[in-house]
Amino acid sequence: MSHQNPLFIPGPTNIPEVVRKACDMPSIDHRSSLFGDILHPAREGVRQVLKSNSAEVFLFPASGTGGWETAICNTLSPGDAVLVARNGMFSHRWIDMCQRHGLDVQIVETRWGDGIDAARYEEILTADTHHRIKAVLATHNETATGVRSDIGAIRRAINSAGHPALFFVDGVSSIGSMDFRFDDWGVDVAVTGSQKGFMLPAGLAIVGFSAKALAATETATLPRTFFDVRDMAAGYANNAYPYTPAVGLMNGLKLTTQMLLDEGLENVFARHHRIAEGVRRAIRAWGLELCAASPDVASDTVSAVLTPGINGTDIVAHAAESYGTAFGVGLGEVAGKLFRIGHLGSMTDVMALSGIATAEMCMADLGMNIRLGSGVAAAQEFYRQSHAHPQQDAA
Amino acid sequence: MSHQNPLFIPGPTNIPEVVRKACDMPSIDHRSSLFGDILHPAREGVRQVLKSNSAEVFLFPASGTGGWETAICNTLSPGDAVLVARNGMFSHRWIDMCQRHGLDVQIVETRWGDGIDAARYEEILTADTHHRIKAVLATHNETATGVRSDIGAIRRAINSAGHPALFFVDGVSSIGSMDFRFDDWGVDVAVTGSQKGFMLPAGLAIVGFSAKALAATETATLPRTFFDVRDMAAGYANNAYPYTPAVGLMNGLKLTTQMLLDEGLENVFARHHRIAEGVRRAIRAWGLELCAASPDVASDTVSAVLTPGINGTDIVAHAAESYGTAFGVGLGEVAGKLFRIGHLGSMTDVMALSGIATAEMCMADLGMNIRLGSGVAAAQEFYRQSHAHPQQDAA
Amino acid sequence: MSHQNPLFIPGPTNIPEVVRKACDMPSIDHRSSLFGDILHPAREGVRQVLKSNSAEVFLFPASGTGGWETAICNTLSPGDAVLVARNGMFSHRWIDMCQRHGLDVQIVETRWGDGIDAARYEEILTADTHHRIKAVLATHNETATGVRSDIGAIRRAINSAGHPALFFVDGVSSIGSMDFRFDDWGVDVAVTGSQKGFMLPAGLAIVGFSAKALAATETATLPRTFFDVRDMAAGYANNAYPYTPAVGLMNGLKLTTQMLLDEGLENVFARHHRIAEGVRRAIRAWGLELCAASPDVASDTVSAVLTPGINGTDIVAHAAESYGTAFGVGLGEVAGKLFRIGHLGSMTDVMALSGIATAEMCMADLGMNIRLGSGVAAAQEFYRQSHAHPQQDAA
Amino acid sequence: MSHQNPLFIPGPTNIPEVVRKACDMPSIDHRSSLFGDILHPAREGVRQVLKSNSAEVFLFPASGTGGWETAICNTLSPGDAVLVARNGMFSHRWIDMCQRHGLDVQIVETRWGDGIDAARYEEILTADTHHRIKAVLATHNETATGVRSDIGAIRRAINSAGHPALFFVDGVSSIGSMDFRFDDWGVDVAVTGSQKGFMLPAGLAIVGFSAKALAATETATLPRTFFDVRDMAAGYANNAYPYTPAVGLMNGLKLTTQMLLDEGLENVFARHHRIAEGVRRAIRAWGLELCAASPDVASDTVSAVLTPGINGTDIVAHAAESYGTAFGVGLGEVAGKLFRIGHLGSMTDVMALSGIATAEMCMADLGMNIRLGSGVAAAQEFYRQSHAHPQQDAA
Repeated sequence: MSHQNPLFIPGPTNIPEVVRKACDMPSIDHRSSLFGDILHPAREGVRQVLKSNSAEVFLFPASGTGGWETAICNTLSPGDAVLVARNGMFSHRWIDMCQRHGLDVQIVETRWGDGIDAARYEEILTADTHHRIKAVLATHNETATGVRSDIGAIRRAINSAGHPALFFVDGVSSIGSMDFRFDDWGVDVAVTGSQKGFMLPAGLAIVGFSAKALAATETATLPRTFFDVRDMAAGYANNAYPYTPAVGLMNGLKLTTQMLLDEGLENVFARHHRIAEGVRRAIRAWGLELCAASPDVASDTVSAVLTPGINGTDIVAHAAESYGTAFGVGLGEVAGKLFRIGHLGSMTDVMALSGIATAEMCMADLGMNIRLGSGVAAAQEFYRQSHAHPQQDAA
Repeated sequence: MSHQNPLFIPGPTNIPEVVRKACDMPSIDHRSSLFGDILHPAREGVRQVLKSNSAEVFLFPASGTGGWETAICNTLSPGDAVLVARNGMFSHRWIDMCQRHGLDVQIVETRWGDGIDAARYEEILTADTHHRIKAVLATHNETATGVRSDIGAIRRAINSAGHPALFFVDGVSSIGSMDFRFDDWGVDVAVTGSQKGFMLPAGLAIVGFSAKALAATETATLPRTFFDVRDMAAGYANNAYPYTPAVGLMNGLKLTTQMLLDEGLENVFARHHRIAEGVRRAIRAWGLELCAASPDVASDTVSAVLTPGINGTDIVAHAAESYGTAFGVGLGEVAGKLFRIGHLGSMTDVMALSGIATAEMCMADLGMNIRLGSGVAAAQEFYRQSHAHPQQDAA
Repeated sequence: MSHQNPLFIPGPTNIPEVVRKACDMPSIDHRSSLFGDILHPAREGVRQVLKSNSAEVFLFPASGTGGWETAICNTLSPGDAVLVARNGMFSHRWIDMCQRHGLDVQIVETRWGDGIDAARYEEILTADTHHRIKAVLATHNETATGVRSDIGAIRRAINSAGHPALFFVDGVSSIGSMDFRFDDWGVDVAVTGSQKGFMLPAGLAIVGFSAKALAATETATLPRTFFDVRDMAAGYANNAYPYTPAVGLMNGLKLTTQMLLDEGLENVFARHHRIAEGVRRAIRAWGLELCAASPDVASDTVSAVLTPGINGTDIVAHAAESYGTAFGVGLGEVAGKLFRIGHLGSMTDVMALSGIATAEMCMADLGMNIRLGSGVAAAQEFYRQSHAHPQQDAA
Repeated sequence: MSHQNPLFIPGPTNIPEVVRKACDMPSIDHRSSLFGDILHPAREGVRQVLKSNSAEVFLFPASGTGGWETAICNTLSPGDAVLVARNGMFSHRWIDMCQRHGLDVQIVETRWGDGIDAARYEEILTADTHHRIKAVLATHNETATGVRSDIGAIRRAINSAGHPALFFVDGVSSIGSMDFRFDDWGVDVAVTGSQKGFMLPAGLAIVGFSAKALAATETATLPRTFFDVRDMAAGYANNAYPYTPAVGLMNGLKLTTQMLLDEGLENVFARHHRIAEGVRRAIRAWGLELCAASPDVASDTVSAVLTPGINGTDIVAHAAESYGTAFGVGLGEVAGKLFRIGHLGSMTDVMALSGIATAEMCMADLGMNIRLGSGVAAAQEFYRQSHAHPQQDAA
């Protein structure tokens, strides 16, 4: 495995040079004012990336999984009912966490490859006349299947049902790469991590809370200390932190949020869409199909490529061993059935082309009927169209 | 504040050059074999630093506080009784965490400045004939007061009482800097973080579990997912991790554990003792006293200096503002009564002397009757004696 | 221009991660023993890469141009005759330097695209019965045209003529990437720089002297101080240096020479040949031709692609502006007639494919009749054949 | 030797964190516009640090020695007379270089410890009625003796003599740390390196030329290519460089010149003076003397401490071996008679105190009659006075 080749896993992403350096900090006294100069701009940057005027942003030394736990343990009590769809490995894991915390989990089983069925949510919520359901959970982008769900539609479903439940969204592999509207969508808790759209090493859970979610922390009885947002809020008010913070990552986050905002969020989303569309055209040129059931749910951060007749995991292993290049394997129900090309964060057309070319060689090596250069040509044709103006990129 | 001056806070410590570079990694595919080559040596290194043949070591992207939570939520159930002494801010916080998790916390209130009273533990445990107490908690080194407790004595107390309770030790500011004997002391869960003796940035909770503690995970009912050691163990068995790991910090830990073992643990401890003793002699030369009530409990990683008549926090603020140098403030009950000089991790005699000299200037600036150079001279005299042979250091 | 995309210029090359870190050193006392521990292994590593048992290696804080100056000013006197072929921009510049130093330069004009004509050298040397020619100069790899000359053949020509002249070889863009045999070829001075096969930043002139060349320093009268190898030699004998050395680059050179030797020089050369051959097949698939007049002189470190009807410099500018990717322009006589793809140093098949793909887009964008994906496919087909065994690479 | 301790050699200096990162660049295409964005601000920054409105600044991948060679080989011809004082090792070496280049060197022998005698220069220049002397050379700060000469006085001497000679000043260990006035002093060539006041790694010769010096390049006949400023000037006019530049160091220089200008040159000089004065007070408190013959010539960048009865080189060796700390040895005539404390570039009061304290221990260890803490106290007393306002520093 070479550090010279780009990564094509759906996070951690390739880290821009300047971001590496922002994270690689000497120790500072986190009880000095230096810390506030990092903490607050980082939080403010996240708030803007969430498209929120009011979200309280909390940064934990943890992973996205810690962000999920932050969402539930701060707002819910043992036995509370939650509504959630399972359409991939990551929604599955969040469900598992809810169950382990003693919640009453109402699962909408969904084909892996489909997005969340907002109409089904609406039916269930409408039927929940006693409002036993305290929270509605949704995974914006299922990293395991490359499927984006319509979060705005789920908000409309909740509203149509006139239901007061909290709305928690896993935006781990969408926030910072695909459009996310905390305020417009009435999200109560948004969860992400540092190692995806924010182009940082793993190590931060990044969580936004609405006022409604914050209010729920007062009555929730699930035990919590490490992930208690009230301790965080009390600390932040004093430029402090309830324990030793991961300062380097926060300094990186201060930088990368500013990079995203300077590029313009819509430009960032357009860039991800362009690169993703090139990859999708390559996949079509190969005669293969996405796991995503229809174009409207295809993710702009990761493409899961079905490989009928071939174990997708073998492709990933071969790419690593023979070409020093990392793709993502299938997980859970889709293990072996596909491989995944991550194309989020710090990625350029040029890098994407090398991933496409490498995937072509691997598939051909394993006996798949892939014409070498075919996917590359389809992506090149698409990428060429975007260059009336020099492209911006993340580094 | 200058990045050129050393830090004299009791963690995060100064980070050696080579360690900075080991942590500053490009992203890798944490599902590839590259990850196992980092994870396992890091864990094995920690095990050896703990002086254990059998501890299972778990590494979480969190802080020492997350390590405390790992200890209790994996082994205890709501309502379980625990025994714990409060003799400083960090034992206080662990107590608070236990209470929030619904445990029945029996607190041995102890003067801030004293070590834990093993005899009192023994009395209580002996009286607990029904073995309601499920765990005994102890803070090895109270970072807030610079007080080291005798963990071996507590183990003997537990044994004398013939009590089956689990034994949890907070070694956050001792492990890797002061003698710690997981096996000899019969520790069941040892907790530390990356940013102290291991000389890394903050961001890893490092936890060792005995077989007895692991067995307790099967029956404990406190909810847990992020900090669940069973998920960790299942992952490790496959060179994997239950979520995205903080690979750079682990790579740093692989290096720093090896650095400590190469130097020799006893040499590392002797080095910390030598540097600490120089600082203590300086304090005596100033005519001041430690918060630590007696020499046998004085910590080798941090010295808390009582400043009667002067607010110790002012000294810290003045050092930062005027000399770009960081010391530690007093916390909780001892806030304002002292300031703290951290001398753990990557520290040399030469660096310590600059901290002593700076403290002298600050105290004199604030009107304390300190003879300039007096503490420096006392420390120099002591340090000189150690140099029959060239000194080893951590970088 | 993105730092995320690889560079395809013929030096400076892409720098491996570990090499970046080896160069990025804190200051050390270059008069301490630490310096010798860097200097001597670096020099020894270079000697082995030169395939020499006896060459004295000198390292100057300079560039390859400084290496040329080192060669001539240490061994020659004003008015001395030298024999040299001009077949590209870099041989042209060396000639210019000789002329400015008052040497009598006998130039063998050679078509840009051809290698050096050893037979012509032999004729001239044979005719030089009074041995007025003191040095024979040859550029091993003309970076401007992508042409490799046969250095062994030139040595045979010198020997056939029974001529005692010194033999100076510019190996700037060959040493460390293509076979170079200091001893076998009877080279007297070999010149290179840090930023090519050694995969380092620019800043070191690296020069090997034979015993015969060293002897010539005693009588040569061209003025010199900075580039005087006798001062260097005297310093080295005391672990010292005649002025302040560029320690970080030397530390990097200590590492990269070891990396090359660990990989095995023949493996390194084979890797460069494989990547180059893929690029050449791509060029053929495009229907284009190399500047190199015949396959046997085609360079394994840089390919100069003739672009009839299109200004090659426009391709380079377009690649930079629209795709954030760097290729090399034509220089001197071939300015505008070609563009160059560098493929030396730290390069992988995967990286090369992204360069080929990008070149295709650029040429198509500028109206050349290039079928997208055609070059990529030709290269992929070739690269696939090499992967019976996992490939080694330089990082 | 520990990388954690500061260096107290008179260059290379301690490198600020941000500067390390600015130098540690990935390769760029130095023929792209990216290069001009580094080159020109770096040159402009140097010009302002030189306090010149018109100097042409040239940056060579070399050392200060290369800068000396640049000065003479561009402006002089074989046999030209130059006037120069020898009062230390570095002026000695420049003299040696002039002699090797066939110049007629008129040496004013000066006691090592004294500054240059401007009156003597005036006598000689006045006597040179035929203006055979083409250049007057002066070392602003003799790094070997810690002696600053009065460059303005030398300019006045030249003017009083009505002599048209060029005026070359070695400012290697003064520029960027002590007041230097290119325009006011009528300097024709100023020479420095990257590793002193500019706080960078070694590897750049930094040279400023007046219009008069540039004019002299047209007629000078000393051979030159690598150090030819006309090639440099021609390159710069096209955002280019005559060979491969050391881009990372230039990027660092762009940053550090800006850091110096942002701090304010007068503040930078005052900071160096304050730190130096503390060191001098320590030396006086030890009962020792500077090599500098009188206070008005004592350097603000390096203090050479006479050690009668003790070999100063032993102190340096002992400091390195026992305390991991680097001081400078005596060179040439003063070898063994002194040791040197460097205090230039990135240095703080706190760092200086650790150097003073370490020197005390070393001298005491070697049997000198030094009261521990005495020098520290003297320096502390002085440093304390400066902190009515928080101090600025270079990082």
